[in-house]
Amino acid sequence: MSISKPSIPKGTRDFGPTEMARRNYILETIKDTFRLFGFQQLETPAMENLTTLTGKYGDEGDQLLFKILNSGDFLKQVTVEDFAQGASAMLPKVSEKGLRYDLTVPFARFVVMNRNELVFPFKRFQIQPVWRADRPQRGRYREFYQCDADVVGTDSLVCEAEILLMIKRVFTAFGLTDYTIKVNNRKILTGLAEVIGVPGKEQELCVAIDKLDKIGWEKVKEELLNRGFSGEAAEKLAPMVARQPDGNAATVVFFSELMAGSEIGTKGVSELVEVFELLNTLGGDDSFIQFDPMLARGLSYYTGAIFEVKVNNVQIGSVSGGGRYDNLTGVFGLPDVSGVGFSFGVDRIYDVLNELDLFQDLSQSPVRLMIAHFGEEEMRYGLRILSKLRNAGISSEIYPEQAKIKKQFAYADRKHIPYAIIVGSEEMKSGKITFKNLKTGNQETLDFDQVLARLA
Amino acid sequence: MSISKPSIPKGTRDFGPTEMARRNYILETIKDTFRLFGFQQLETPAMENLTTLTGKYGDEGDQLLFKILNSGDFLKQVTVEDFAQGASAMLPKVSEKGLRYDLTVPFARFVVMNRNELVFPFKRFQIQPVWRADRPQRGRYREFYQCDADVVGTDSLVCEAEILLMIKRVFTAFGLTDYTIKVNNRKILTGLAEVIGVPGKEQELCVAIDKLDKIGWEKVKEELLNRGFSGEAAEKLAPMVARQPDGNAATVVFFSELMAGSEIGTKGVSELVEVFELLNTLGGDDSFIQFDPMLARGLSYYTGAIFEVKVNNVQIGSVSGGGRYDNLTGVFGLPDVSGVGFSFGVDRIYDVLNELDLFQDLSQSPVRLMIAHFGEEEMRYGLRILSKLRNAGISSEIYPEQAKIKKQFAYADRKHIPYAIIVGSEEMKSGKITFKNLKTGNQETLDFDQVLARLA
Repeated sequence: MSISKPSIPKGTRDFGPTEMARRNYILETIKDTFRLFGFQQLETPAMENLTTLTGKYGDEGDQLLFKILNSGDFLKQVTVEDFAQGASAMLPKVSEKGLRYDLTVPFARFVVMNRNELVFPFKRFQIQPVWRADRPQRGRYREFYQCDADVVGTDSLVCEAEILLMIKRVFTAFGLTDYTIKVNNRKILTGLAEVIGVPGKEQELCVAIDKLDKIGWEKVKEELLNRGFSGEAAEKLAPMVARQPDGNAATVVFFSELMAGSEIGTKGVSELVEVFELLNTLGGDDSFIQFDPMLARGLSYYTGAIFEVKVNNVQIGSVSGGGRYDNLTGVFGLPDVSGVGFSFGVDRIYDVLNELDLFQDLSQSPVRLMIAHFGEEEMRYGLRILSKLRNAGISSEIYPEQAKIKKQFAYADRKHIPYAIIVGSEEMKSGKITFKNLKTGNQETLDFDQVLARLA
Repeated sequence: MSISKPSIPKGTRDFGPTEMARRNYILETIKDTFRLFGFQQLETPAMENLTTLTGKYGDEGDQLLFKILNSGDFLKQVTVEDFAQGASAMLPKVSEKGLRYDLTVPFARFVVMNRNELVFPFKRFQIQPVWRADRPQRGRYREFYQCDADVVGTDSLVCEAEILLMIKRVFTAFGLTDYTIKVNNRKILTGLAEVIGVPGKEQELCVAIDKLDKIGWEKVKEELLNRGFSGEAAEKLAPMVARQPDGNAATVVFFSELMAGSEIGTKGVSELVEVFELLNTLGGDDSFIQFDPMLARGLSYYTGAIFEVKVNNVQIGSVSGGGRYDNLTGVFGLPDVSGVGFSFGVDRIYDVLNELDLFQDLSQSPVRLMIAHFGEEEMRYGLRILSKLRNAGISSEIYPEQAKIKKQFAYADRKHIPYAIIVGSEEMKSGKITFKNLKTGNQETLDFDQVLARLA
């Protein structure tokens, strides 16, 4: 064993006690809402067969999959010719497993494998890390958590309305008040392609207008022309792009009229209207929702409603998003399963709450109290008090060694423990407890029951 | 995209809703106890540099590490000569990362990297999956959770006593009453080697007697002779092996006398005695603890107390174990950090609770109620009730489609949802709620507040 200076792989992170407390707070809040709405938890393995993963995320995605080297002699199937052909030719012979790239494909795989046992509509949530061999940069990691909820096996728009409510509920719990859920429907984008005279080209249209926020209309227009759109088609799009948000009702009216000539576009608008109505019936106000007909979302598998959530006045991208798909499981041999899902971006929510200083209630330690002591005998006396505190459910600890009282308090201070009990010969004689508030410095002499009352 | 028949890698598992509810119950119970005792959570990345992992688990362990193929052109550093030399020569050039094999090495790596920021004694717990390329078999998986708690930076025996209390508390919470915590001290084994005349050979002694339970004394004796122990040494060991448990006090007396000639052995016994005393001071009875001088535990890094927990009358191996070590972080350049830790075997605890039928309280769905309806309008009426239920914190759902009432109830039944509300035209007219207990079939007509009372 040689001594190595330790480090962790780039793009990965350790989460110490403070980060974990905050991350747990985020995840528990989200889980509470998922459960309240009847979603059940699923976990899938970190490793999937490469046959499951490959080809599901485009060529770029395939490149970004972390592949696991076959165990044992990984070269046993490899010939000199394979080696001469290079890495991509050799890959299938040295690796048959990869790390989960998202939670959607493993979920689809699970649904297909368990289709006979599952109860449909199947409402599942899943919170696990995923891995991508992306170039690490600020806010982009090679290991990060995804936090998904999906309903499959129904095309009921109640699910869309419930997703909007769940987002609202989670954000309210976080104390977030100024955010926008942008909603649209892929069918409207399909209709738009028809209306501007490029029927069937909605995918190219989506990819281009997905960049509106980032690169602006002039650049998007350029891209459309490069992708073979006519100048006329692009010009027809211009007024819709330029349109300022003027309320969902007005936008609905505008696009109803615009889509009059497109059957699918009209269906898209009416689905959206129904989602608004259902939301209203469910008691949700739609003040935080904005119908944005230019919202596209890149993923090609969406076929109905799409949504994306941004917190206003912070420079952080979308913190949640999702949509409806009609054929997620088709690639695994189970066609025609409609579903709708969404995802919370845990890392971004963390950054938002941090920036807006909404973590304040978590600064306190989960440990409420430390017992400090002036010697061996005092420590043993303290152990008895400790045992009674824990039996009363108080998270507490004793400084486990003989040390100067100053050192013991420094420990409590650095762990942000709010209270201390101090055991000296005086306390052992009197049976009274010296109880100290470490924030205020206030010190009292109490009975055990009074200590419990102070900690309640 | 070709259609592939989906499967998961051998030795891995999906955890569906029922398994997840049970696993969460196990993990939450353990976490509660860890927190009550002042431990804080840590998470480390799934991937570690191979320089961190290699050489820490013996040659066999190195073989069982899952290695990650370098991203991009993984052959770019590989020459024809490397290839000709075979897999193990080529490995360092195609892989620089591996999957976490346990939680102990990443923890040691974390402590060393953060030694200047951490507050010592540092009490951390960590619950994450680990991966081993072992041959899968019943009860042995390639991905499984470990659940560890450690205190580093103190040699106080209070920590050992607290670990025994934590184990007891967790088992009590699970409803487990018939279990045994075997404890020993590595120093006693070192002393034993001295006493039987093979000083310095305690490692070989440990490896051999670690197998006592599995292969019996005759085979262990054979192994000792093969390892170069004299027949005389083996014979000296025989009466201790044959010794029947006759209470901790008697065993302490027996071994105190036996160790009289060994300084380290005597220290081992006195440490053990102090742990028993501290446990007693902390209010823990020691009826579930058995001092077993033949307990060895394989891992070579233990230097003090060791323990191992078995549930009696079930055919499942140890469900928890741990011990004290004096130089865990030495391999990363930080010597002389004493610590003590232990681990719960989540998969085995799952099997034990399952076998003893102690999961019974979890058979119920977290979803308390489903709303069934006789039509479109009734569903919308039901949505309003649903919204009120959720605002009252009741986990509930509505069947999201129009379907025969029988199909809706079948859904509730398969999800083990205990209650239903049925909305028909009658209910809409009267404003009363038809509330059904799906287990008993009992049906009542109630006001909303009465429904809440039934669900309380």
